Amino acid sequence: MSHVIDALVEALGSRVRVGSDIPSRNHADASGLKPTAPQALILPQSTDDAATALRICHEHRQPVVTQGGLTGLAGGAHPQAGEVALSLERMSGIEEIDAASATLTALAGTPLAVIQQAADEAGFLCGIDLGARGTCTIGGNVATNAGGNQVLRYGMTRRNVLGLEVVLADGTVVRSLNKMLKNNAGYDWTQLFIGSEGTLGVVTRAVIGLHPKPQGLQTALCAVGSFEDALVVLRRFQQAHPGRLLVFEAMWREFMTVATEICGLAPAFEDEHDVTLLIEADMGADPAGTEAFSLLLGEFYEQGLIKDAVVAQSRADRNRFWAYRETPYEYGRFLPEEIRFDVSVPLNRMTEAVAHLRREMPKQWPDAVYVVFGHVADSNIHINVAVRDMDDAIKKGVQGLVYDLVSRLGGSISAEHGIGRIKRPYLSLSRTEPELALMRQMKQTLDPAGILNPGRIL
Amino acid sequence: MSHVIDALVEALGSRVRVGSDIPSRNHADASGLKPTAPQALILPQSTDDAATALRICHEHRQPVVTQGGLTGLAGGAHPQAGEVALSLERMSGIEEIDAASATLTALAGTPLAVIQQAADEAGFLCGIDLGARGTCTIGGNVATNAGGNQVLRYGMTRRNVLGLEVVLADGTVVRSLNKMLKNNAGYDWTQLFIGSEGTLGVVTRAVIGLHPKPQGLQTALCAVGSFEDALVVLRRFQQAHPGRLLVFEAMWREFMTVATEICGLAPAFEDEHDVTLLIEADMGADPAGTEAFSLLLGEFYEQGLIKDAVVAQSRADRNRFWAYRETPYEYGRFLPEEIRFDVSVPLNRMTEAVAHLRREMPKQWPDAVYVVFGHVADSNIHINVAVRDMDDAIKKGVQGLVYDLVSRLGGSISAEHGIGRIKRPYLSLSRTEPELALMRQMKQTLDPAGILNPGRIL
Ligand SMILES: Cc1cc2nc3c(=O)[nH]c(=O)nc-3n(C[C@H](O)[C@H](O)[C@H](O)COP(=O)(O)OP(=O)(O)OC[C@H]3O[C@@H](n4cnc5c(N)ncnc54)[C@H](O)[C@@H]3O)c2cc1C
Ligand SMILES: Cc1cc2nc3c(=O)[nH]c(=O)nc-3n(C[C@H](O)[C@H](O)[C@H](O)COP(=O)(O)OP(=O)(O)OC[C@H]3O[C@@H](n4cnc5c(N)ncnc54)[C@H](O)[C@@H]3O)c2cc1C
Repeated sequence: MSHVIDALVEALGSRVRVGSDIPSRNHADASGLKPTAPQALILPQSTDDAATALRICHEHRQPVVTQGGLTGLAGGAHPQAGEVALSLERMSGIEEIDAASATLTALAGTPLAVIQQAADEAGFLCGIDLGARGTCTIGGNVATNAGGNQVLRYGMTRRNVLGLEVVLADGTVVRSLNKMLKNNAGYDWTQLFIGSEGTLGVVTRAVIGLHPKPQGLQTALCAVGSFEDALVVLRRFQQAHPGRLLVFEAMWREFMTVATEICGLAPAFEDEHDVTLLIEADMGADPAGTEAFSLLLGEFYEQGLIKDAVVAQSRADRNRFWAYRETPYEYGRFLPEEIRFDVSVPLNRMTEAVAHLRREMPKQWPDAVYVVFGHVADSNIHINVAVRDMDDAIKKGVQGLVYDLVSRLGGSISAEHGIGRIKRPYLSLSRTEPELALMRQMKQTLDPAGILNPGRIL
Repeated sequence: MSHVIDALVEALGSRVRVGSDIPSRNHADASGLKPTAPQALILPQSTDDAATALRICHEHRQPVVTQGGLTGLAGGAHPQAGEVALSLERMSGIEEIDAASATLTALAGTPLAVIQQAADEAGFLCGIDLGARGTCTIGGNVATNAGGNQVLRYGMTRRNVLGLEVVLADGTVVRSLNKMLKNNAGYDWTQLFIGSEGTLGVVTRAVIGLHPKPQGLQTALCAVGSFEDALVVLRRFQQAHPGRLLVFEAMWREFMTVATEICGLAPAFEDEHDVTLLIEADMGADPAGTEAFSLLLGEFYEQGLIKDAVVAQSRADRNRFWAYRETPYEYGRFLPEEIRFDVSVPLNRMTEAVAHLRREMPKQWPDAVYVVFGHVADSNIHINVAVRDMDDAIKKGVQGLVYDLVSRLGGSISAEHGIGRIKRPYLSLSRTEPELALMRQMKQTLDPAGILNPGRIL
């Protein structure tokens, strides 16, 4: 065993594991990269443990990969040969819910679902929500600035974070467990670590701002003739009922075709339409709100803005509507291997983006199945492309097509999922050289020895 | 003239002014510090000009103070002897409103009111609003992470900024005129500059996210028996009508006494109450919303949560309610010299904070007039203290009392207005040594020669 592992074991005892004592779950994240055993696994039980571990690794210039719930899709937490993994899994638990301040303080390894549950029991809503909620951790959410289902209403993780405790590369602990919405006392250094994907420090605690619970949830599926009409519906809805929209998801024609013809769902409407919208709004406790929701959709219909619509009358209806949006989770069963993109495109270029894909995809890969869907209001679309006998050449070709397009339209190659290892080669498509230089400067300042998540982002 | 001024004049010609050509308005900001002429005034007309100016100043190690609208209250833009002032006043104008993306792009020297007006004409609302709107600039708002009247609904300036263009200390231009709500492509470096009070770079352009316009504004003045009851009213209102509250201001008993007995306003209610609330909500276009507002307040009254209430029936009523909240702007006419504090206190310690002031103020300064008021939901309170024959000893004493209290309760010595020069000696009351060290590292990295706003914040 190397000196650094000796030193770690001496300081942390059984909180350090090596060889076959490292569970295989710590060999990989959800990115699909090849599982790789880390040199050792550190399981800190406290911020002090994490600080000790980083201090030792720093002294020995030992690369460290930080692991939360390992649900990341960009390979950020996926070990590379020679790295020591530091997993937050034993630093789990809610430390405080302060109802007066509407805040929750938790250890970084706490699963998001545990936080959501605790907030709910205290009469609040946690504004962060994503499909991986049962497994992903609040530390991972902070590190990736996770988006998800409620961004339209509550913002990305960044907007929900009030305070952080972070261990720096050399083991220094920096803490601002701030509960206040306003604190302009010097630089808000916590912003540096949100979305830094573990490359600038290890998050050990977070203070999350909580929201009132929605009441009077309304759900509808609406067909519109174009993305432009979808945008008009969005803006008019927000105008008529400010602050009420929770979900505004678009599924383009190809997406609905796959949902019905390949995944076997019943068609949502009699006719085909260019875009189908899944809309949810919190209309408040008052029954007048419920009525107002249907009334407004009715108006849109009369104005020809929406071509068809159904409003959920029951939980079963709601589940049925969401089932369309969730078909991508089932693609593995029905489709050949896919490449999945999570990109942003400025809203005024969205139609152009989709038209380009519709023109180029069939031309270059005639048998490709591709779908476009996503969080319209957030300018975030997902593109999944399945091609039979996918190989590296096809993969590169499809990636080239999508990333060039996004770059040309002034979009971002990563809306939510981050850069990690997987998108690192493409970062310069979304960022200029002075921006990259500034990022490198930040990395160099905070992690001069380059031990934290090397090869991720930069 | 010094070499650096020569070099600046050579590069920028008449965009550099010296001596009596420097208008006296550039000698001071709104902090009340003694006016001081800068060595020269640079008036860039473009980002290139600003970059040229900083490059030259950087080469000559020439300190630079950046000036926006000069409405800052912390002395950040106030020149110190020997500094060159760089004013953004000629970089003013809106460059684009993108209705599809709901964004506005403006030069940093654009007055906030101009941006608000343009957003309004395009059918949107700008989420940033403060009393200084006619004079303050969007660059200054970004640099100070300004708060203001709508933070409860739209957040501080940080939440409204999507993209920035910044000139670094050495003249490098970094640009991310991002319009997308989601962009996790590497570090969000723009966060560094928001709230850095001109000490890390000069903001030259900003992309601001716009909001739908509120409709169906309702305003009420409510009396409650305690701050705890105010918090219950806040949370229940948010629960019943999520996303609707715009304003939730508290004015403690002493504040209302000064408003009526000293400033001469008519009493708001027959009896005195411990806390008076000014509540505004956007209830939507539907008349049912208007009704729901009054109904809910009626319920609170029946439950004994609010002791008395009046709902505005007209614009005149609304102005009359706001007049209470705005009496502090008039204090200069009625009261001896004041010290004004802008602090945050965690909501669950607020009552303790007020009780402490009520105990200690009269004990130490029997003739002091003091008032407490502020943005409850944001944990931000203002404390104004007027003492006859104020001198430095009294000033120090009052500051000591307030800042010690805030620090002890885990609050912040600056909620909105920033640190600048004026609060610099007190920063360590709200920040720990590792936090300050991290801030110094950021400053050192981005401005190694220390030419940008020296002596501010750190
Ligand atoms: C089914 C499914 C649905 C998903 N849906 C979404 C979605 O809607 N929106 C979205 O944004 N993402 C989504 N993701 C991606 C993923 O869940 C998020 O990125 C999540 O925030 C990662 O959390 P984690 O704890 O699993 O982090 P990990 O995967 O363990 O790590 C992710 C990155 O953060 C770093 N990290 C983890 N913990 C810490 C810490 N304590 N301190 C410092 N760095 C740390 C890691 O080093 C790595 O770089 C989804 C993933 C799956 C599998
Ligand atoms: C009547 C009144 C009411 C106010 N109400 C509020 C309020 O409710 N909430 C609140 O937060 N503040 C308030 N303020 C304070 C002030 O208006 C804000 O801080 C405002 O954001 C300052 O903008 P400015 O353009 O005047 O900046 P300036 O005063 O010129 O500068 C402020 C700081 O920002 C820096 N700066 C300015 N422009 C730039 C730039 N382009 N790039 C980099 N740095 C720059 C300066 O160097 C300085 O450190 C109020 C002030 C007054 C006079």
